[in-house]
Amino acid sequence: MQAAPAPPPFAEPALASATASERGEALHALLRELYPLPRSLTGDGVRQTLRLLQERLLPGLVVHEVPSGTAVLDWTVPAEWRIRDAYVATAEGERVIDWHAHNLHVLGYSQPVHSWLTLDELRPHLYALPEQPDLIPYRTSYYHANWGFCLTQRQLEALDEPIYEVCIDTELDPHGSLTYGELLLPGEVEDEVLISCHVCHPSLANDNLSGIVVAAHLAQALSQRPHRLSYRFLFAPGTIGSITWLSRQTPATLARIRHGLVTTLLGGPGAFTYKRTRLGQADIDRVVAHVLRREGYPHELRDYVPYGYDERQFCSPGFDLPVGCLSRTPHGEFPEYHTSADNCQFVRPDQLDESLALYERVVQVLEGNQRYQNRQPYGEPQLGRRGLYGAVKGQGNPREAEMALLWVLSYADGHHDLLAIAERSGLPFAVIRRAADQLLATDLLAPLPAVA
Amino acid sequence: MQAAPAPPPFAEPALASATASERGEALHALLRELYPLPRSLTGDGVRQTLRLLQERLLPGLVVHEVPSGTAVLDWTVPAEWRIRDAYVATAEGERVIDWHAHNLHVLGYSQPVHSWLTLDELRPHLYALPEQPDLIPYRTSYYHANWGFCLTQRQLEALDEPIYEVCIDTELDPHGSLTYGELLLPGEVEDEVLISCHVCHPSLANDNLSGIVVAAHLAQALSQRPHRLSYRFLFAPGTIGSITWLSRQTPATLARIRHGLVTTLLGGPGAFTYKRTRLGQADIDRVVAHVLRREGYPHELRDYVPYGYDERQFCSPGFDLPVGCLSRTPHGEFPEYHTSADNCQFVRPDQLDESLALYERVVQVLEGNQRYQNRQPYGEPQLGRRGLYGAVKGQGNPREAEMALLWVLSYADGHHDLLAIAERSGLPFAVIRRAADQLLATDLLAPLPAVA
Amino acid sequence: MQAAPAPPPFAEPALASATASERGEALHALLRELYPLPRSLTGDGVRQTLRLLQERLLPGLVVHEVPSGTAVLDWTVPAEWRIRDAYVATAEGERVIDWHAHNLHVLGYSQPVHSWLTLDELRPHLYALPEQPDLIPYRTSYYHANWGFCLTQRQLEALDEPIYEVCIDTELDPHGSLTYGELLLPGEVEDEVLISCHVCHPSLANDNLSGIVVAAHLAQALSQRPHRLSYRFLFAPGTIGSITWLSRQTPATLARIRHGLVTTLLGGPGAFTYKRTRLGQADIDRVVAHVLRREGYPHELRDYVPYGYDERQFCSPGFDLPVGCLSRTPHGEFPEYHTSADNCQFVRPDQLDESLALYERVVQVLEGNQRYQNRQPYGEPQLGRRGLYGAVKGQGNPREAEMALLWVLSYADGHHDLLAIAERSGLPFAVIRRAADQLLATDLLAPLPAVA
Repeated sequence: MQAAPAPPPFAEPALASATASERGEALHALLRELYPLPRSLTGDGVRQTLRLLQERLLPGLVVHEVPSGTAVLDWTVPAEWRIRDAYVATAEGERVIDWHAHNLHVLGYSQPVHSWLTLDELRPHLYALPEQPDLIPYRTSYYHANWGFCLTQRQLEALDEPIYEVCIDTELDPHGSLTYGELLLPGEVEDEVLISCHVCHPSLANDNLSGIVVAAHLAQALSQRPHRLSYRFLFAPGTIGSITWLSRQTPATLARIRHGLVTTLLGGPGAFTYKRTRLGQADIDRVVAHVLRREGYPHELRDYVPYGYDERQFCSPGFDLPVGCLSRTPHGEFPEYHTSADNCQFVRPDQLDESLALYERVVQVLEGNQRYQNRQPYGEPQLGRRGLYGAVKGQGNPREAEMALLWVLSYADGHHDLLAIAERSGLPFAVIRRAADQLLATDLLAPLPAVA
Repeated sequence: MQAAPAPPPFAEPALASATASERGEALHALLRELYPLPRSLTGDGVRQTLRLLQERLLPGLVVHEVPSGTAVLDWTVPAEWRIRDAYVATAEGERVIDWHAHNLHVLGYSQPVHSWLTLDELRPHLYALPEQPDLIPYRTSYYHANWGFCLTQRQLEALDEPIYEVCIDTELDPHGSLTYGELLLPGEVEDEVLISCHVCHPSLANDNLSGIVVAAHLAQALSQRPHRLSYRFLFAPGTIGSITWLSRQTPATLARIRHGLVTTLLGGPGAFTYKRTRLGQADIDRVVAHVLRREGYPHELRDYVPYGYDERQFCSPGFDLPVGCLSRTPHGEFPEYHTSADNCQFVRPDQLDESLALYERVVQVLEGNQRYQNRQPYGEPQLGRRGLYGAVKGQGNPREAEMALLWVLSYADGHHDLLAIAERSGLPFAVIRRAADQLLATDLLAPLPAVA
Repeated sequence: MQAAPAPPPFAEPALASATASERGEALHALLRELYPLPRSLTGDGVRQTLRLLQERLLPGLVVHEVPSGTAVLDWTVPAEWRIRDAYVATAEGERVIDWHAHNLHVLGYSQPVHSWLTLDELRPHLYALPEQPDLIPYRTSYYHANWGFCLTQRQLEALDEPIYEVCIDTELDPHGSLTYGELLLPGEVEDEVLISCHVCHPSLANDNLSGIVVAAHLAQALSQRPHRLSYRFLFAPGTIGSITWLSRQTPATLARIRHGLVTTLLGGPGAFTYKRTRLGQADIDRVVAHVLRREGYPHELRDYVPYGYDERQFCSPGFDLPVGCLSRTPHGEFPEYHTSADNCQFVRPDQLDESLALYERVVQVLEGNQRYQNRQPYGEPQLGRRGLYGAVKGQGNPREAEMALLWVLSYADGHHDLLAIAERSGLPFAVIRRAADQLLATDLLAPLPAVA
């Protein structure tokens, strides 16, 4: 069979020369660098995070600052939270809880406080996990003025002084801003894929850092090769960040988003889990399900629930963007979730690497999945004289590549995209895509616009 | 969580102060009063039945009389049948079959006859059940001039006289009328629920009386509390009664019927059985299936078949009303069916009570099931500042009541009614309904009109 | 029940007086006559085949000749291939491969050749089956100039001469023609059923002859009785034949084709296999599935694949005709396929007969499957006064025939054809059809046009 030259958009992604294990190590190294930064909804932790992404991988990442107090949809950008120190100390000056030891120790968005309190006065401001006595929980109070400390149950039980010095040296600046990063990689067409991850969790490795490093590496890889679709990467604080971003888009911008994924929890163990879009009938739902099934990943597909990450905002019924969430074990379903055990040991290089490989596969299908019209739809076109078909007949079914040509011709009717044809035929998407390329090269197919 | 006041329509139904067993006894007491009345398609048995309902529970019940001979759709209102006596007696005057002993003894709508007949002449007019030798069958011949007696097989076998006096003292009055009762309980909206039961069977307790007493008690309960929907109760003879009623309605009246149930066979043992509407896609089909499943009743759902009770007329393709049939064991599937064993012992108070409770649950969902539009559909509205949401975050999924708010906001898109949201979320309907009430109270939802 | 006279269209097909075994023998006898004819894409083998069908069964069969070189859709009618002799002989003149011994011995459409070749020169032109060493394969090279011989592996291994005389006395006449046969049996309506079989395979009994003889017998049977639908039988060479036929039809002609079947592989063993139309939602798909299920045939239903017989052309997306393929074991799935073992012993009379009986059943349902409108759709019409219903009531469900009346009345709503009603009710199609006839006879149904 004479192979027509495969057009560039579907060229196998050249993931540099990195081997899987090199790439996993690179992902993990970046994660370790990001781990100690004191991220929150706002403040310098997010800024440092975005700057590191710019320096290491994404020089084109644009950092946006939105002033505190800005009305964003039904919300208001909160005061910027800055933290310099936080501790509980004995009368002797011994710090029994110290934010410098672990940035989970302070309740996120704590108001400033400096006072001497009895243990009984202090206790309502202490958060521990009786069932996981060695772990520090992660707690926040963004929209309710409060202060507090998170500590291990063992620390809590060891407190036996009558009085403690309590200091939280924070500031809630009404003239500050909320920070997010955005990177648009324009493709041949304006149709966009939105990849979004949250950047508001402090030292939590799986819950937020794994998503950040996979998204950043994917962005870098895409920035170095041609692609058909445009890709928009969003690194924003959870909820208020995506709401802020959404509030700043025009309907025309949002209309370009044809597919989207929220990227999180990609470094821990456990099977992949895909949470469908709100109505569960978007292309991204079919694409991810196809890749997970065809590539043989252990996985689970779940219907949308209105709780989770920023898909909640993207999928809200007014926007109704086709955004799913592709993670490993979902939030709340592993014991390390939102504790100090979600650390750099919990996240493994090979798991990060496998997650990135899965995202690359999804991108491959998104890139290649188009609709075509058979230009010779009356009877079968004669493939033989176009060099597309074997000559001696009678030996049973033609080969897979020849069958793929027939499948594409037969269902390139405007109602089936290539993914539908792959699913219908049982052939790998790449084989169907290559058949379409051959048929394009021999003028047997005409491209159709994406479905609006 | 600050609970918004639940609006009145969904207030838990105040079923007076009756306990379940009191209510069961009340249902059964009414059934026992109704049992001996000689109901038929027409005649005083129906009138006495309706009068008793008026006196005991439903003073507002309107009794309609439609003259014999009136053309009703493809049918004609038959002559009114009156019966004073019916017996078979020996030459010595001993009544071996006596209508006064059991009103099933006479073939329904028997022509008058008074004659001396040999046993052989009499035999073609005798109906017995060889397989159930102690039971009197129930037989009628409404539209074919005939006369006859129903008796037990033992009675039949004991007949050994050469000649018998046969007397059926009936009258078929072409100037009589057909009688039915109707009660409309107007609600906040004109949309109606039709509850219909047949009132043409003589001493049969499960097959007709159980439906009558459950419907009457439900009507009384609804008459004593506010309700959103209007309810129309129909107590009419089977087939010709519903046909007569249908023939007297305007298209506008019929168009108001949004849901309907035929109420019958509710006092015997056996699981609940719901027979769907003709096309099986009406709201009532979803509502009843939901209640039966969620409340954990053993039950069976069946597709429509064009045989059964008056759903045959309501669902006929010209009217195509959304009327299902909610019973326990269906007609013909229990051995007591259409025999003298379908009596007041066969029907039990607790079964009647459970049936009424099920109907109340169905009414609850019908009342509460509305469609709404999220008024802040762009991103999630900030529930916290409206007092609808917990403050400290990070502890996993919010509570059921908070999740219900998110479910309603997420799917209040015009395409999902609250029942669909309950089914989608797996949460109880009442929890979803309460969430909608909270969102209404905080102006986050707008009501949408019912789907036409 | 008073049976209305069944209208003629649904009269049970009078399959002459032939018993099943007589008919099976007749089918097989015709197949044996056709077996030796040297069919190919073009040439006298096809002409002789069609002439034999005319003489034996189908005097009205019209034979079309389409000149070589005619442009037909994306193809061109090839030169006509004529063959007089073909052999490989030793220097002593012994024919070691001889076309006169078996017409599979020559590669179909071989170019003429006459030469002396060494065994090594000859070998690339020899086709054998190492795994089935006693069978001659069937191979062709229609659109790639070539020549060759097919022989058994044993013959191949026995070749040990240094040099052979190779003679293929063929002719590829650019002024010849392609031949196909067509028979239209007009019915009461112009809506057509297309029955198509390929006639281009030489001595292969199951793969092509079984389809030809079943189609021809079906055509003869239909030509001898009235029928509602029109039937168009097509006997044409595979691929190029159906493409040629399609290229000569007007859109109006093609629009008349409401149902179609490709008829092939009907004489071997194995369960029936139905390959659905391209989109799998045509009436023929429902009809064949219904018949196979209801009649209890072991069978398999398969979705369309774009490879197989002429359904590939009929179902191509430009034409998109509702044509399935109803065979026994499909091509390539039995060891005799495309070998000399697909002979008259492999095909059995009883299997041919059973196949024809199945096609007759399908025709019966196609004939009887219409849509009607209930003319008394408001409530149930009174069947009793029309003599359609039993008189004494109370004994449980009416009989099957009475239930069928109710089913038809209930679903004759314009959305359900009789087949849908049969499927919905679980009653045999014939019972539903008879009920419709009774309702037509009593003016309770009105016919509706076929769905466009």
